[in-house]
Parts: sequence; C-alpha cells; structure tokens
Amino acid sequence: MKIIELHKSVTESNDRDAEKLRNELKERGTFLINVMSSPGAGKTTLLSRIITDLKNELRIAVMEADIDASVDAEKIEALGARSIQLHTDGMCHMDAGMTRQGIEAMGIEEIDLAFLENVGNLICPAEFDTGASKNLMILSVPEGDDKPLKYPLMFETSDVLVVSKTDALPYFDFDMEKLRERVRRLNPKIEIFPVSAKTGEGMEALEAWLVKETKEWKN
Amino acid sequence: MKIIELHKSVTESNDRDAEKLRNELKERGTFLINVMSSPGAGKTTLLSRIITDLKNELRIAVMEADIDASVDAEKIEALGARSIQLHTDGMCHMDAGMTRQGIEAMGIEEIDLAFLENVGNLICPAEFDTGASKNLMILSVPEGDDKPLKYPLMFETSDVLVVSKTDALPYFDFDMEKLRERVRRLNPKIEIFPVSAKTGEGMEALEAWLVKETKEWKN
Repeated sequence: MKIIELHKSVTESNDRDAEKLRNELKERGTFLINVMSSPGAGKTTLLSRIITDLKNELRIAVMEADIDASVDAEKIEALGARSIQLHTDGMCHMDAGMTRQGIEAMGIEEIDLAFLENVGNLICPAEFDTGASKNLMILSVPEGDDKPLKYPLMFETSDVLVVSKTDALPYFDFDMEKLRERVRRLNPKIEIFPVSAKTGEGMEALEAWLVKETKEWKN
Repeated sequence: MKIIELHKSVTESNDRDAEKLRNELKERGTFLINVMSSPGAGKTTLLSRIITDLKNELRIAVMEADIDASVDAEKIEALGARSIQLHTDGMCHMDAGMTRQGIEAMGIEEIDLAFLENVGNLICPAEFDTGASKNLMILSVPEGDDKPLKYPLMFETSDVLVVSKTDALPYFDFDMEKLRERVRRLNPKIEIFPVSAKTGEGMEALEAWLVKETKEWKN
C-alpha cells in the first residue's frame, strides 16, 4: 500500500489554492468530499459501508490522512477501492496544498467520488479549505448532543452532518431533536443524516444523496 | 462564573516554563493533573464524579479549557468545586504559559488537587508540557481499541490512561486486552484504570490513586 509523507504547503493563500483545486476537480469530473470527525467517530467504518454499497454504481477512491499509521487505508484497500495513506508529519489538519499532493500521488482518473478522510479532530481541520466539493462531518452518538456548543466552527463549515452509531442510542443520553436545534442554529442549510453503519439504518438516504450530488457535479 | 480569555504565550522555551511552574506547584502543595481526551470521551462527567466522591477528603479545583463555550465549567461549579473557564482563542492546546494564566486567575490557595481539562483533541495537547504534575488521558470505549496505533504520542506522554464508559462494553467491539498490549508497547510504565462514571465501576481504584499521589506530592 502506498504511503505518502506530505510536506508543508508553501503558499500565499490557501483559499485561492483551494478554489483552484475545486475548479480542476470539477473539470475532471471527480466529486471530492472532505470527511471530518473526532477520533473514533466511525469515519473508516462509514466509508467501508458506502464503498460496499455503491461500488457497482460509482468509482470510489479514499485518501486517508493521519499523523501516523496506515491501519485505515489497509482496511479500505481490502474492499477493492483505490486508496492511499497520507502522513501529515504531526500536523493536525489538511489544507489545499496537502490535498493536491495526495490527489497527484493517488491519481483520480476514472474516479467519480473521492473521499478525503481528514485528521481525527474537531478543531483544526475546520479552519482550512481543502478544495473539496463538500465538507461532511461525522458526530457519533457516544460523543454527546452538546458538541455544537463546543465546536461551533466545525458545524458551521460542514455541508452535511452524519450522526453515526445510532444503534447505540438506547445506551446513551443523546437527544436527537436537541442536537438538530443546536446544529440548525449554527448552520440552517446543513443536511443531517442519522445512520448506523452497523445495522444499515439510514444508510440509504445518505447514499442516495451521495449519488445525486456526484452526478450533478459531473454536469 | 469567571471566564478568562487566554493570550498566546510569549516564551523562548515552553519546557523551561513548564518545569518552573511544576516546581512552584510543588512548593505550594497543589497536585495538578492535565486531563486530555477526544471530544465526548467523558472528561467532565468523570471529573464531576471524582469531585462528588472525594470532596470531603481533598480540596479540588478545575480549570476548563475550551476554544469557546462555558458549559463544562458551569457543571463543575454546580458541584461546589472551585472552577474557571479558559478560552484558548481557537488554539487547540494548552501550554505552560497559558496554564499559568489560568492558575493565577483562579487561585490555588488551599487547593490540594487541581485538574486542567485540556482542549478535546488527541493530537496537539500531547505536544506541549503544561507544567502539570501528571498527564492523564481518557479513552472512551466507543472510540475503539485501535487508537494507540493512530495517536501514539498521546499514549506515550500520559502517566495514566483512564478507559471510560466501560458500561458500554457489551455494545461495542472493544478488546480491553488488545488495548492494554498496544498501550504498554508504547508506554510500559503507564497506569491503566478502566472505569464507568455512570455505574461507578472502577472508580474506587482511580480515586485511591488520586488520593495517594496528591498526598505524596505534598511531602
């Protein structure tokens, strides 16, 4: 499996680099989703499920960014999807220049939908535009419904919120309605998908959204 | 409730500042624990339980560091413990200079045991010595037993690992023995306490350790 050691981006403007990358991806017909969450919210499990369910419909690739290790990319590769491991050299986020390094190393020819699994962290990744078409954040039920109060920027910069591990709802004191209210107050346009990658509950709606957005991006 | 907006530390050497602060705390007889974890691992719930259980034995204070918000400090204050909210102005970690600002604003006269609840994040906080007497990290069962593979520095720099939410073990695929092996390989001297702040399981051993260490620090 390919492991890429990223180097620090040398740039005057990350926002400009991100816009440029986004336009190139549009031209090449690849829909890129930047996936952000806490450690252990279930990013890799969710992506594994999506790949299994959609691999006959879309050509999918995954870039796994981590400060170290390569466990996630190995799991994804075992499912037959194109995958690459990116090491951020201790940096707690991905920016547009780093994302470009990953895309060039992996290659996105004939890829419809690419995921960038950002570093597991609710703070720094929210501060940098990666050039992705959309930002998707995952909040797992065990983390609690109060997280929008503590990490507002992450909820503000996300286009989609996936509430994961809903199969654990009976065992945690988590109020889905209270969460929706708190999130919508920060970001009225965000789309919210409660799912369990374990039981499959809610996956259909999320996957329908992914297919629709990927196809629209190509037009 | 008091909220302090921290300013960036101006220092040549954080390690030197941390050592100086640690020595001062030793002289003043306050045992300071730096508590680190992911968002939602249960830092505030664990500290609330400890305060309730030990408040007749030790004089306890809590500094809550967050990029924003003050929900946690309010909860702690309601238990009758001395508490202060620190805002890090977007920074994803605490260093020794910031910790000193918090201590000066809160006051630690007649405090035996003080907790610094660091920013919720498994990456940046591990990189800075805060001047605390000990580093304690919390890993919650829902986050998974693979976290030492992905965030090795956090496990290496911690003196104590609290595995929280053990009441959720039946609902998650979490192997405690595998976790112990992975952690010990990174840090053979770390003390590991599996606990549930909800049911109280394992709290006695953790609290006995806290009392013992606090008393030894004073001698």
